Amino acid sequence: MKRFVDLAQLPRDEVLALLELARRLESHPEPQALAGKILGLVFFNPSLRTLASCQTAMLRLGGGSFVINPGQGSWQLETRDGVVMDGAAAEHVREALPVLASYCDALGIRAFAAGRDLAHDLAETTFGTMAALIDKPLINLESAANHPCQALADWKTLDDLAVPRTARFVLSWAWHPRALPLAVPAAALHMAALRGMEVIVLRPEGFALPPAIMERARQAAAAAGGSIRETSERASALKGADVLYVKEWGATACYGDNAADARLRAPLTDWCVREDWFAAAAAGCRVMHCLPVRRNTAISDAVLDGPRSAVQLEARNRLPTQMAVLHQLLRTPP
Amino acid sequence: MKRFVDLAQLPRDEVLALLELARRLESHPEPQALAGKILGLVFFNPSLRTLASCQTAMLRLGGGSFVINPGQGSWQLETRDGVVMDGAAAEHVREALPVLASYCDALGIRAFAAGRDLAHDLAETTFGTMAALIDKPLINLESAANHPCQALADWKTLDDLAVPRTARFVLSWAWHPRALPLAVPAAALHMAALRGMEVIVLRPEGFALPPAIMERARQAAAAAGGSIRETSERASALKGADVLYVKEWGATACYGDNAADARLRAPLTDWCVREDWFAAAAAGCRVMHCLPVRRNTAISDAVLDGPRSAVQLEARNRLPTQMAVLHQLLRTPP
Amino acid sequence: MKRFVDLAQLPRDEVLALLELARRLESHPEPQALAGKILGLVFFNPSLRTLASCQTAMLRLGGGSFVINPGQGSWQLETRDGVVMDGAAAEHVREALPVLASYCDALGIRAFAAGRDLAHDLAETTFGTMAALIDKPLINLESAANHPCQALADWKTLDDLAVPRTARFVLSWAWHPRALPLAVPAAALHMAALRGMEVIVLRPEGFALPPAIMERARQAAAAAGGSIRETSERASALKGADVLYVKEWGATACYGDNAADARLRAPLTDWCVREDWFAAAAAGCRVMHCLPVRRNTAISDAVLDGPRSAVQLEARNRLPTQMAVLHQLLRTPP
Repeated sequence: MKRFVDLAQLPRDEVLALLELARRLESHPEPQALAGKILGLVFFNPSLRTLASCQTAMLRLGGGSFVINPGQGSWQLETRDGVVMDGAAAEHVREALPVLASYCDALGIRAFAAGRDLAHDLAETTFGTMAALIDKPLINLESAANHPCQALADWKTLDDLAVPRTARFVLSWAWHPRALPLAVPAAALHMAALRGMEVIVLRPEGFALPPAIMERARQAAAAAGGSIRETSERASALKGADVLYVKEWGATACYGDNAADARLRAPLTDWCVREDWFAAAAAGCRVMHCLPVRRNTAISDAVLDGPRSAVQLEARNRLPTQMAVLHQLLRTPP
Repeated sequence: MKRFVDLAQLPRDEVLALLELARRLESHPEPQALAGKILGLVFFNPSLRTLASCQTAMLRLGGGSFVINPGQGSWQLETRDGVVMDGAAAEHVREALPVLASYCDALGIRAFAAGRDLAHDLAETTFGTMAALIDKPLINLESAANHPCQALADWKTLDDLAVPRTARFVLSWAWHPRALPLAVPAAALHMAALRGMEVIVLRPEGFALPPAIMERARQAAAAAGGSIRETSERASALKGADVLYVKEWGATACYGDNAADARLRAPLTDWCVREDWFAAAAAGCRVMHCLPVRRNTAISDAVLDGPRSAVQLEARNRLPTQMAVLHQLLRTPP
Repeated sequence: MKRFVDLAQLPRDEVLALLELARRLESHPEPQALAGKILGLVFFNPSLRTLASCQTAMLRLGGGSFVINPGQGSWQLETRDGVVMDGAAAEHVREALPVLASYCDALGIRAFAAGRDLAHDLAETTFGTMAALIDKPLINLESAANHPCQALADWKTLDDLAVPRTARFVLSWAWHPRALPLAVPAAALHMAALRGMEVIVLRPEGFALPPAIMERARQAAAAAGGSIRETSERASALKGADVLYVKEWGATACYGDNAADARLRAPLTDWCVREDWFAAAAAGCRVMHCLPVRRNTAISDAVLDGPRSAVQLEARNRLPTQMAVLHQLLRTPP
């Protein structure tokens, strides 16, 4: 494995091997596995778990890291090609990224969706431009439409909770004050599809996931023996659900139009996950969320603090899975 | 010792042992004592000495650290319980902190007083909420009403300067353009009380330290054979003083009311410590301040640059005392 | 060597030894050379390469580092002496820097020119004030009128490209939306002079480098067998050029007057380096720039992406040269 940028680009065996490695590193630490190795981290957007788990993953394996926040202590970076750079950005990623890559052994990059042009974001134009500039192992720390590190931690969480491979996995939209990117819902959907689950996407009208994302997931589901369907009917979707994976995202019916998005979401504040959502769910149905989550906006206190919640386990699993990815990318065989 | 959050919570013997350990680490470095250990640092507020001394303390003992600044590169965090989170904060400490604690071996948190409600701040409501979420060794890097790391460094400074245990320690208010928290004056007062000193709190009318802080210090002083009194008379307070500990803080008579505080402090610009303050002090009376200090506002250039000043020694002592605290919390016996 | 603050302060032999050491560390890594050593980094201004190369240099040599950004997570710092500090700065460098120096083994400081008073900036008043406070090895990470780390990397780049010692080195002004400091043009000029090159400074009227900088470089050139001249005639300057070193800087004719500077530079947008600049240059003439560079503003895409460009090599050379400087300052002989 040279890059970890999209779970869909890896053979299923490699994903399973990463999960196996993550489990092994939990029980058998390798405090010198990456001695002398350096991970460069470039965050165009805020981070808590990704930042902390990447830095601690390197430390737990004997390596080190550095962090660049473009626009905060470092130059604001341009990502578009061919631009006359007379605006706010002092530097282009074409200069910045190959240099940073030359200093380290692997580079991780976070660059959220611009949220203006759906085709641009789905094509991963920005992340793809950057990835093409880097000749070192690369990790996608969340791009416009993907978050493979989160997806890997989510998969491990399902395994840790002994959720059967063929269980019913409901990916539900939840309310948020403004439009958020599609990266996590797309990644979670694909992960569940790859795992072979019975997947239901539950979202209000106007918030359907883009056809390209759905189609790609359908193919993965078909190959893994699972299924994908979508609905806006909450009761039917949640009936018999084994896992409710909650996520906020923007209206795809009017992508990039904040005013229209605000109008669409205004009446949807009841899409805050409360205990009564689970009336017809399977006994022991678990709730997942990648975090950060707004309490009593997307999910109620009672659900987050109750026994259904797997959000802590998901977040904690970011560390062993990040360690597995870095180990796989950087470990020099002895 | 599992937590270092308040000097008053530790038996006096443990405090003395930390001071002894700090001295030992100065003369006998242990560059591998914390090999493989990770300290997570969460700063809700700015820092210079605490940030740098924590990071270097881990490095000097063979460990590592990471830093999270909520709202600056990381999500803004909510600390209140039961809130509908539709404002600026994207995440709650209930989610964020247990996760960060799971990645590291000890967590340090800085969260200044909100400065609106005295009872809330004195009760350490915010820090207490966060501390209750963490099942790892925890260090208070300055909370609403406490700064035990500073207090420990101050104690070591008094020892290094051979200031007798029973010497006269004057804690004096000083001028500042706006209200500052009570954490350092409370911590310095308690430290001097625990040390058994003859403590005088010198402050203008309206700036008395809260009764709860005074009472707690009086009990510690009584147990250690020292004493506490307070006054607004500068000349009498400074007569025979062996140490002048200078600190700026907000008016407690109108806590949380910035306009009233500004009116109260406006005529007090002569509370800038100048050489003539020491006319009747003991020969060799030293000046202490936790830093940062505003020159010629709280303390004059002449005093800060003169032979009385112990501010550099105090600040330098942050490193060995921080090393002692971390060593005590994290060292696995061989 | 105790300090690396100005290439001109080092005997030529020491500069050559640093270049030799940089090459040796490229081919013969020393992953434990600085084990246990700590570099403190204080950035008053943004950084990408300097920040990342300093941190990775320490990691590659087995050491560690910490970063302080005054005003961003740390207190805003005052540098002027004798001031009544009732403004934005909470702390003075007289307190902050000796403390930070006490925590680490070497300190690096970046403090750009204030850009208001040419004499103040040329005298390195701010950096000099700070340097005088520090009793540890010190690295200038770019001061008002100097950037020795960049100059060393540039020199190594010329060596790596086998540019003859006596080749024709043209330092050219380029367009930028606003006035930038003189540090890099001054450092590049001096480096080429020290190397013994035939140096031509090409700049529009009003942008001549200050006489003090030119004179100091002329002396270095004379000692090294090279030469310095300046012109505003692009065609004659570039004729036979072996290297074009491009840099943006502010108008020295009206230093500190932003409106006058803007008027002077407004008609100069054709000072964007394009391929036609090289019509009469030597075959294989290389283009250098310290980065960050604004594409199609200072240098065109075609030039930056074409075979003349050495900007990546320059930036990559920041790592081995930074390692050499740190090794020289901090290595304890075995």
